[in-house]
Amino acid sequence: MRAMAFGVLLALFSGAAHAEAPALKCPLDAPYDVQNPFAKIARGESQAAIIDADRLVIAFVPIGWDNPGHTLIIPRRHVRSLDDMTDAETLSVFHLIRRIAKAQERAFGATGYSIEQNNGGHQTVCHAHFHVIPNTPEQKVDKATPEQMQAIAAKLRAALPPR
Amino acid sequence: MRAMAFGVLLALFSGAAHAEAPALKCPLDAPYDVQNPFAKIARGESQAAIIDADRLVIAFVPIGWDNPGHTLIIPRRHVRSLDDMTDAETLSVFHLIRRIAKAQERAFGATGYSIEQNNGGHQTVCHAHFHVIPNTPEQKVDKATPEQMQAIAAKLRAALPPR
Repeated sequence: MRAMAFGVLLALFSGAAHAEAPALKCPLDAPYDVQNPFAKIARGESQAAIIDADRLVIAFVPIGWDNPGHTLIIPRRHVRSLDDMTDAETLSVFHLIRRIAKAQERAFGATGYSIEQNNGGHQTVCHAHFHVIPNTPEQKVDKATPEQMQAIAAKLRAALPPR
Repeated sequence: MRAMAFGVLLALFSGAAHAEAPALKCPLDAPYDVQNPFAKIARGESQAAIIDADRLVIAFVPIGWDNPGHTLIIPRRHVRSLDDMTDAETLSVFHLIRRIAKAQERAFGATGYSIEQNNGGHQTVCHAHFHVIPNTPEQKVDKATPEQMQAIAAKLRAALPPR
């Protein structure tokens, strides 16, 4: 019993230490991991439910979401975080964000959208990516089937305004 | 008692209706309100704890935060959402984001940062703004004093890398 109490205390203390300096999955100074899942999508080695793409960036449906229509945009290049993106990539991302947001409005009835983009902290896939999250009613999906993802990509694709 | 129960029922029903189509503070198709607080900062009519600025954009400390070092970046122009920003403004924002993130690292020990930007949905000030949120240990402040904001701005300003 005493050993257990000690273990709990220890866990509490190490928990507190972690709250101060959390271990990062994608430290900003780590080398780029060419096997991360978004790198495989960018190289065309993994299937993805692609909505649109240009020479520099790709938009696709994530494996899970809180709001139907949630989209990810990544640079094609091996880029770990925002710090490593070029101006041309940044502009391609933002031109695509606007068209995706319009498609989310037309296809899913969204009346607004949010951009989220994590670097080091809160980053779980170590390739730069932008979330484009519509304010559609919450309908959480943790792990979508390829068919669910393709159906959403098709709906968004059909609703995309021209470039 | 019966009247109260009816009132509760009514509140529940109207709550459900709101969950479907929430009333937006900043609808995307509303005219720009020139009296919003960020417009006044952009025009120099309100005091703000400014960290840095260029011809197109301004970075300053918000009135409240969860993570010390949290910074806002706005275009100087009257711009309601991302949809209305020019390419030059977008690039100015992103060049400044990178320098602010470096200053958050140097001045506050952050090891990562997140970008958040809301349009229509979740937008509470109707002038386009980008949150640059460092992964500093949470230390919530709801309404900072001007002195607190100025102290943080000075720390970040001193830690900014050159352009």
